[in-house]
Amino acid sequence: MDTKSSKKILAAFKGQGARIETRARVKLAGKKDFSLWYTPGVGVASLHLAAHPEDARKMSVKKNSVAVISDGSAVLGLGNIGPYGALPVMEGKALIFKEKAGVDAWPLVLNTQDPEEIIRIVKAVAPSFGGINLEDIAAPHCFEIERRLVEDLDIPVMHDDQHGTAIVVLAGLLNAAKVVKKNFKDLKIVISGAGAAGTAVAKLLFAAGIRDIVLLDRVGTIFAGRTDLHTHKKELAGLMNPRRVEGGLAEAMQGADGFIGLSGKGVLKAEQVATMSPRGIVFAMANPDPEILPDEAKKAGAMVVATGRSDFPNQINNALVFPGIFRGALDKSVKKITEETKLRAARALAALVSKPTAAKIIPDLLDPRVVKAVARSVL
Amino acid sequence: MDTKSSKKILAAFKGQGARIETRARVKLAGKKDFSLWYTPGVGVASLHLAAHPEDARKMSVKKNSVAVISDGSAVLGLGNIGPYGALPVMEGKALIFKEKAGVDAWPLVLNTQDPEEIIRIVKAVAPSFGGINLEDIAAPHCFEIERRLVEDLDIPVMHDDQHGTAIVVLAGLLNAAKVVKKNFKDLKIVISGAGAAGTAVAKLLFAAGIRDIVLLDRVGTIFAGRTDLHTHKKELAGLMNPRRVEGGLAEAMQGADGFIGLSGKGVLKAEQVATMSPRGIVFAMANPDPEILPDEAKKAGAMVVATGRSDFPNQINNALVFPGIFRGALDKSVKKITEETKLRAARALAALVSKPTAAKIIPDLLDPRVVKAVARSVL
Repeated sequence: MDTKSSKKILAAFKGQGARIETRARVKLAGKKDFSLWYTPGVGVASLHLAAHPEDARKMSVKKNSVAVISDGSAVLGLGNIGPYGALPVMEGKALIFKEKAGVDAWPLVLNTQDPEEIIRIVKAVAPSFGGINLEDIAAPHCFEIERRLVEDLDIPVMHDDQHGTAIVVLAGLLNAAKVVKKNFKDLKIVISGAGAAGTAVAKLLFAAGIRDIVLLDRVGTIFAGRTDLHTHKKELAGLMNPRRVEGGLAEAMQGADGFIGLSGKGVLKAEQVATMSPRGIVFAMANPDPEILPDEAKKAGAMVVATGRSDFPNQINNALVFPGIFRGALDKSVKKITEETKLRAARALAALVSKPTAAKIIPDLLDPRVVKAVARSVL
Repeated sequence: MDTKSSKKILAAFKGQGARIETRARVKLAGKKDFSLWYTPGVGVASLHLAAHPEDARKMSVKKNSVAVISDGSAVLGLGNIGPYGALPVMEGKALIFKEKAGVDAWPLVLNTQDPEEIIRIVKAVAPSFGGINLEDIAAPHCFEIERRLVEDLDIPVMHDDQHGTAIVVLAGLLNAAKVVKKNFKDLKIVISGAGAAGTAVAKLLFAAGIRDIVLLDRVGTIFAGRTDLHTHKKELAGLMNPRRVEGGLAEAMQGADGFIGLSGKGVLKAEQVATMSPRGIVFAMANPDPEILPDEAKKAGAMVVATGRSDFPNQINNALVFPGIFRGALDKSVKKITEETKLRAARALAALVSKPTAAKIIPDLLDPRVVKAVARSVL
């Protein structure tokens, strides 16, 4: 972004102050209102919830609220910029939650990056919320944090960088396969970036039936037997890359049907796109600067190109997913966002594009059907 | 409260669901709005706040927000009923914050009662908020928790059960002294209850110049040399009770000018009121059932009687204080609620009653001048 645009944006944020606020949903005008909604009336609700905590989902903010929680360790593509750096993003998500799905979300940025501490904090604040949207927490901590919270809490917990991204990528890929007239499950997929998003995308594509997935981290392709792998990457190595492709992106791209970039600016070269199988699919989602620019990818032979940006066709954006997922989860009081829900949400999103074309594989962010369709898919 | 009223109230809470919600303060209609307030625009704000966290108070929810935090260890007069029991009260306070003072407050009830854990959690979530209202945390933990947070955080932290109560009691007592035509600083005061509220009231009355204060806990009067005292009570014993009154409430009330009850139903007997000095002041603030009923106290000789209830004259209620204190603190970006601010707030509240009478020593909860006057007093 150029300096002039940046200055204008900063001035807008400074002029605006907060972008969300609270609002009363009951009248508090006279003494009767105070007696009912505050003392002494509130004591009745308190005693009831002390005895029946499960009713908090019916008669308190817990009914419709989500905490958007980050430790600021991996904010957008900006890296580890801490809680204050994370705050505008979390507040922006809270804004989208409300405007898109009527969910009352509140940003909570944490002044700690210790995973055990984060787990304790989220568990401690959970009674006030109906759901937990984890956000912009770096790998590998994000996996353990999410796993433990999903296990221990009775409200839905979702790390959106992982699953929001995975769902919207799967939706786009389902339609892209139709456009390029290839069988979805037979696609050979290369994923660049084995962080939170890349890992979750790989797992969800696998769950959706794709078997030939080559995942790359900074070192190169991940394969069974690579000796420097730990924890989550080791687990992935056992599941994927059945052809045991070794090497870098150049090796991985040869004959691939699809590239999914969750890495960084300019990572994918035109000459690598040129080695893909015919009618290639390129999702270059690094933000704000994609792995390859759409024009360049097309010139090199790709048929369907998507990015994370709103100024190119096919914007693959989590905002298509998280509002509807939590809308559905709150409405149905579900306790977990299951693998089945993620697959259903992706299919529901994809189905909103009745005739996919190279320039239209995913619904628009402004499409009013999106939230309902995703919410309906939650089981 | 009778069963029928309780059932009606519970039905109202169940029918209502949440009593507060969030609301967007910016438009999020078209792609331009998304580009400015979400990606890529939000990245500019994030980078700026990472470098200049102090600007979060200008350009994020931190500008106007307060967390209302409780561990549920001392909820109203209901005792230790846990986070879910506390939730309706904290949500009710958030409602009052907004309706009275335009403050965006969010309830956070904590699933832990370990003081070190609470301190860590509040410190960790503090970046998202412009102030911390601690609430319904039992003594003695509440003292250490508040002390450490006030020391370590750069946003105002106030345990309302302590200081909100102390400020409103001092305000009422300033006017009550006028009504009974006694010199305020010479008042002999008995405080029944040495928990969070009683302790803070004793300290603030002392700071306001009253020297003859006899504080009682469940055992009896607190005096220098009582051997079973620990921590905060030991400290108070050194400061107060200069006549070294020993014994129970009967002994303490003899010749007293004022009684301040922060204890329990029916604790004060008519025959004890009868032993007070002429034109006695009785604040019987146990909720919902006061230490003595107003009629009984008056019959026994008290001239000014106040309670915590809205259905009697002179309602001594924290809601007169906390909205204005945080309104002023947010507007002036103060880092601490000082002793001086508390004294000024009490005087400002008292001054709103131009001609105090026995039936009117404190402004009404619905008086529109209250919040502004208290906010103005914050230094």
